[in-house]
Amino acid sequence: MKSINLKLKNNPYPIIFSNNDKDLIKSFKSFVPEKKVFVISDSNVAPLYLKKIEGFLKKEKFIVQAYVFKAGEQSKNLKTLSDIYNYALKVGVDRKFTVVALGGGVVGDTAGFFAATYMRGIKLVQVPTSLLAMVDSSVGGKTGVNVEGGKNIAGAFYQPKFVYINTDFLKTLDCQNIKNGMGEIVKYAVTFSKDFYNKLNKIFDKAVVTQKDFDEIVYQCCKFKADIVKRDEKEVSGVRELLNFGHTFAHALETITEYKKFFHGEAVAIGMLFVANLAEKIKFCTEKTKNEIYKIVENAGFCAKLGLKKTDTKKLLELMKKDKKSISKTVRFVLPKQTGKAVFGVEIKDNIILKTIEDFLK
Amino acid sequence: MKSINLKLKNNPYPIIFSNNDKDLIKSFKSFVPEKKVFVISDSNVAPLYLKKIEGFLKKEKFIVQAYVFKAGEQSKNLKTLSDIYNYALKVGVDRKFTVVALGGGVVGDTAGFFAATYMRGIKLVQVPTSLLAMVDSSVGGKTGVNVEGGKNIAGAFYQPKFVYINTDFLKTLDCQNIKNGMGEIVKYAVTFSKDFYNKLNKIFDKAVVTQKDFDEIVYQCCKFKADIVKRDEKEVSGVRELLNFGHTFAHALETITEYKKFFHGEAVAIGMLFVANLAEKIKFCTEKTKNEIYKIVENAGFCAKLGLKKTDTKKLLELMKKDKKSISKTVRFVLPKQTGKAVFGVEIKDNIILKTIEDFLK
Repeated sequence: MKSINLKLKNNPYPIIFSNNDKDLIKSFKSFVPEKKVFVISDSNVAPLYLKKIEGFLKKEKFIVQAYVFKAGEQSKNLKTLSDIYNYALKVGVDRKFTVVALGGGVVGDTAGFFAATYMRGIKLVQVPTSLLAMVDSSVGGKTGVNVEGGKNIAGAFYQPKFVYINTDFLKTLDCQNIKNGMGEIVKYAVTFSKDFYNKLNKIFDKAVVTQKDFDEIVYQCCKFKADIVKRDEKEVSGVRELLNFGHTFAHALETITEYKKFFHGEAVAIGMLFVANLAEKIKFCTEKTKNEIYKIVENAGFCAKLGLKKTDTKKLLELMKKDKKSISKTVRFVLPKQTGKAVFGVEIKDNIILKTIEDFLK
Repeated sequence: MKSINLKLKNNPYPIIFSNNDKDLIKSFKSFVPEKKVFVISDSNVAPLYLKKIEGFLKKEKFIVQAYVFKAGEQSKNLKTLSDIYNYALKVGVDRKFTVVALGGGVVGDTAGFFAATYMRGIKLVQVPTSLLAMVDSSVGGKTGVNVEGGKNIAGAFYQPKFVYINTDFLKTLDCQNIKNGMGEIVKYAVTFSKDFYNKLNKIFDKAVVTQKDFDEIVYQCCKFKADIVKRDEKEVSGVRELLNFGHTFAHALETITEYKKFFHGEAVAIGMLFVANLAEKIKFCTEKTKNEIYKIVENAGFCAKLGLKKTDTKKLLELMKKDKKSISKTVRFVLPKQTGKAVFGVEIKDNIILKTIEDFLK
């Protein structure tokens, strides 16, 4: 059992890495005194794992309630939240319960926001089952749901009592979901570390990525994430913006395609190519850096064909301007300086963005 | 200009008492650097005050956006919240905006929860316009909306940057709304101070309650509230439960009558009579104390006729068990020990509660 301690001032917590379910029980005993849990999961994950987890929690004399909603980004909204509030009330979930978010990013974000707001906040444990959730969304306390007008607009910073990462869950993920996580993994490499960039490229060159590879990758990504979150829990100093490398464009892309065409990780991969182009255009980085970013994104199995119309150019810009990180009329980007080194808060004028989008959509 | 400092560890803030609008501008300049505000109000308050406030903010070069929703407890829900999220996005409210909650309790709770969750939290200023909001809901950071199954179930603890109390707003309140606030005012007296109890009774004995009386009452109540919130911001130690004197029964009563029959203050007044009966029944207080509570509640203009059926007894108990302060199978009450001294966390068995409700409904 390995762990990383996320040393936040007010609410420090561990990320626990283990493939032995007994460690989940141990973690509960260490970090959550009351034996009452409310598991929230979705229709993909629940049939595979819910019964098993309910079973061994009940064996340890936990009181267990569970709610399962329809899998998919389309469920991450206020309606689902409203259904969970009402269900929780009906089955007697009170302030002594701990929410267990069992699933991928959508479950983690929705269940996390539920925990943050149910009766003004009850305890939360993140048990990510997708690669994306393991390396990104389960760590750092960002929770929230989408509203008509935008992604993650209703949300809260709400830290879990612990995160439990068991890479055995990855065994039931399909290729597309693995690729989905790869988007964020590549982001860490490009943003934070040339060493990790090199290591990843080597792994991608192999015929098969083994579970041992994943163990290493997931642990390393959580380290990057924990380090940033520790330095800027609530996006105040700006350092946390670094984690949004590629995301400003990705969010706009997801919105314009109504969350139907691209998985989040794919959108992020494309978003990274976009900022690589943007940075090169304004000579913020060299062509070599841009090419290195293209190399790892393609090596990870992504392709850059968007299939968007030229008429979408202006709409993409408008959407980026509405991004919640935007605090002025100019859009702020995280741009690559070199591979493994990115800079946040770079304001770019509209006409340059428009030109880059146009070239990018060609 | 008087003020009370609410000395919270992480986010201290002042409650400012002034009948001069220039002090509102001054407060903004002191506590909120950016000149961007998003005023949220309702259809009762907006026609009276919104234009005026917008006017003098704009004169001081503030960027002002505003959203007005239909007045009434029925609007305090996720649907209204969803409408506000979308409107805010549409008009470009970003993280640098400060939400100004201009209205009574419903506006303060809803706008407060919006501020707590919009883009994971933007700044908030409370400008209460009703007596109830001035003495209670605008201070202390409780925000939230109702869901089908219960009151304030979706919410957050979220402190404002400052509270601005101008008792001139009371001039446009009708009698019923004044009485509504009186419920909470009487609660402070009965819970915290025999002196304040005596003072209030004297004021109630007069033919007319003057604005000077209100200035004193509001200031004193904010002092009680600030003191408790400082000691137990998030209802952890339990001290904050004291503020729920009368509220467990009140919430059940409001739910059973679908928020249509009683104003919140009325429900609280009735709830206080209920716990007076409960406390006397188990000999927790004397008959004299019970009578003193009856005296001030009636003196404040409330009547104790509920018009409920005997068949509602069990339902009221069930609803009290679902109250979010309930952390075990027994219902916990705040009970009067003497006038001006209450005790929280008193667990009462179901059969005693049922018997007390039965007698109370007679």
